[in-house]
Amino acid sequence: MIGVIIGTNRPNSASRKVGIYYQKLLESLGAKSQLIDLATLPEDFAFSALYHNYGKNDLFNEFQTIVDTTHKFVFVVPEYNGSFPGVLKTFLDGLRYPDSFHYKKAALVGVSSGVQGNVAGLGHLNDILSYMETDVMGLRIKLGRIWEHFDGEDFNPRDPNDAKAQHVCNIYKRFLERQAKELIAF
Amino acid sequence: MIGVIIGTNRPNSASRKVGIYYQKLLESLGAKSQLIDLATLPEDFAFSALYHNYGKNDLFNEFQTIVDTTHKFVFVVPEYNGSFPGVLKTFLDGLRYPDSFHYKKAALVGVSSGVQGNVAGLGHLNDILSYMETDVMGLRIKLGRIWEHFDGEDFNPRDPNDAKAQHVCNIYKRFLERQAKELIAF
Amino acid sequence: MIGVIIGTNRPNSASRKVGIYYQKLLESLGAKSQLIDLATLPEDFAFSALYHNYGKNDLFNEFQTIVDTTHKFVFVVPEYNGSFPGVLKTFLDGLRYPDSFHYKKAALVGVSSGVQGNVAGLGHLNDILSYMETDVMGLRIKLGRIWEHFDGEDFNPRDPNDAKAQHVCNIYKRFLERQAKELIAF
Amino acid sequence: MIGVIIGTNRPNSASRKVGIYYQKLLESLGAKSQLIDLATLPEDFAFSALYHNYGKNDLFNEFQTIVDTTHKFVFVVPEYNGSFPGVLKTFLDGLRYPDSFHYKKAALVGVSSGVQGNVAGLGHLNDILSYMETDVMGLRIKLGRIWEHFDGEDFNPRDPNDAKAQHVCNIYKRFLERQAKELIAF
Repeated sequence: MIGVIIGTNRPNSASRKVGIYYQKLLESLGAKSQLIDLATLPEDFAFSALYHNYGKNDLFNEFQTIVDTTHKFVFVVPEYNGSFPGVLKTFLDGLRYPDSFHYKKAALVGVSSGVQGNVAGLGHLNDILSYMETDVMGLRIKLGRIWEHFDGEDFNPRDPNDAKAQHVCNIYKRFLERQAKELIAF
Repeated sequence: MIGVIIGTNRPNSASRKVGIYYQKLLESLGAKSQLIDLATLPEDFAFSALYHNYGKNDLFNEFQTIVDTTHKFVFVVPEYNGSFPGVLKTFLDGLRYPDSFHYKKAALVGVSSGVQGNVAGLGHLNDILSYMETDVMGLRIKLGRIWEHFDGEDFNPRDPNDAKAQHVCNIYKRFLERQAKELIAF
Repeated sequence: MIGVIIGTNRPNSASRKVGIYYQKLLESLGAKSQLIDLATLPEDFAFSALYHNYGKNDLFNEFQTIVDTTHKFVFVVPEYNGSFPGVLKTFLDGLRYPDSFHYKKAALVGVSSGVQGNVAGLGHLNDILSYMETDVMGLRIKLGRIWEHFDGEDFNPRDPNDAKAQHVCNIYKRFLERQAKELIAF
Repeated sequence: MIGVIIGTNRPNSASRKVGIYYQKLLESLGAKSQLIDLATLPEDFAFSALYHNYGKNDLFNEFQTIVDTTHKFVFVVPEYNGSFPGVLKTFLDGLRYPDSFHYKKAALVGVSSGVQGNVAGLGHLNDILSYMETDVMGLRIKLGRIWEHFDGEDFNPRDPNDAKAQHVCNIYKRFLERQAKELIAF
């Protein structure tokens, strides 16, 4: 079972859609997965689950349980302000340490409307996951200009006659498949 | 007016106490300051102020107004999971872009119970502030082993006979004073 | 006097050409500059100037003297293996510490044939310059796909009919001018 | 066969001694290793092997051959100017891309005379190794205040009566052993 963490709480985000694409990809490769969607966190978790109701926020504890029983993760992470969303780190800060993530494996996918595909944010996230003693796959995927290359379900160019964009779509699909296969074997 | 941002929402945090120390330091140097304490954010701001009530969360808008009218900042930032708290980035993600922080100045102070004084987290935060076009002072202060060197009000060794710890306290005080002076002139 | 550091020792590099463009830009704004080109370092400096002939490598000492007498720098830095060239860090490692760069100012320009404009490498470099107590301007310029947007002398699209590339060229020029003006005032 | 890369060309460095300690540790666990010591690189390699004699520097090619035939690495990396030595990145820049490091595994050890054990430099290095598609073990070891805890051969406190330092020595040894075991199984 692979946990696909959607790294934002934005409703109906591009990252959520990419996460669902990734789940289908894993399924086609014979691997089961489960979506861990930060948009469904309790709205006050940054205060309740981390501090004044620590350990007793039932909705947050459901997330803790899923993390506890999952040993491989894909993080699909949009770029906000040149890094990953704060809510993702707040989620990690709310989980028990060190056993939530130690001795586990992760793969990283960055998503951005701009060109960079969250390359800097994936570096920051890797530092944090390493601190938590998660082994992170070297192959990080950077999905830049997401809306020119992804139609919400599959990687297709927004302009169907754009050969360059089609080429990028093909590269994105090929690298995601390679990453998914390597994660299954990791 | 210098904004002293407490980079966690933990109640009664070490960083808040260091922030108050920093305010007194600024006052002794003739500079006014204001505490921007993330512990007083509305508890659901990560969902309300960022998404379903965007721009209309009155309590969050008070933070936006303070940021809008402030041009120099000190970030006092504890180390959580090898970086800064997620709530700090969520706060930055909730502010208007790009005018909340562009053409502004900032100084960084890391706080940790361990030895590193959040050196990695200050690097991550600098990347984000640079993205927002804030000029960040080169001199970053790393206050490691905070509870061995800070009594909640001033930098004093926990063990008054510990000459090494006293030496570190002196260094911390000297560097904070140098940073505060440079920030005033920045 | 502004030092324009070419962050690679590759002969005839794109970064060198961008550096010369930057010098002309500074000249047009009334500021003098000097090229500090790592391609002219003594070939064995990583061993000689750092270790067995420390302080006595005359050719390297000329670089030290230029750095000593310069207080503002632009770093033009290509992307090699997802970060900046090792030779740039070796150069910094060979300079005296801490007075070579402390209390100085710097602006960063990344150059890449790929899309990212060395965004990650500029973050790494900023960490190092902060360690050296150089204040780094928040506005970092990322010149991605350099050969589609730069003809070796000016920012022009490789394909003169490519309106998108022309748009990117205009953005690159505008941001470089903004950075140069801010550096002069920094 | 595990390659132990000494990340500096400083003669007789602390990192080299820690690397030899690591080799003995690996041997005690039944794993063979080989030292890859950057102090034995040709002195002009940054110019010769990277540019004017690319592919034809026989001494450098011996390093390339060792890297080609090795699939797991330990990087023992001192902290210079808040990051890793430039010569290490120059070495990586000189190797063939992408096949020198892709589909390979690495573990990171930081070494510093100060407290931080090169935590920031290990993050920068992880970004570069990820770019090269090397899987990096989450557990990074940070050996701060090396000369208070390492006698050149083993981890012993400089002051034999310093119980705190002895405690740190024990932690260092335990974590290095854990990392070595995990690397063998990685």
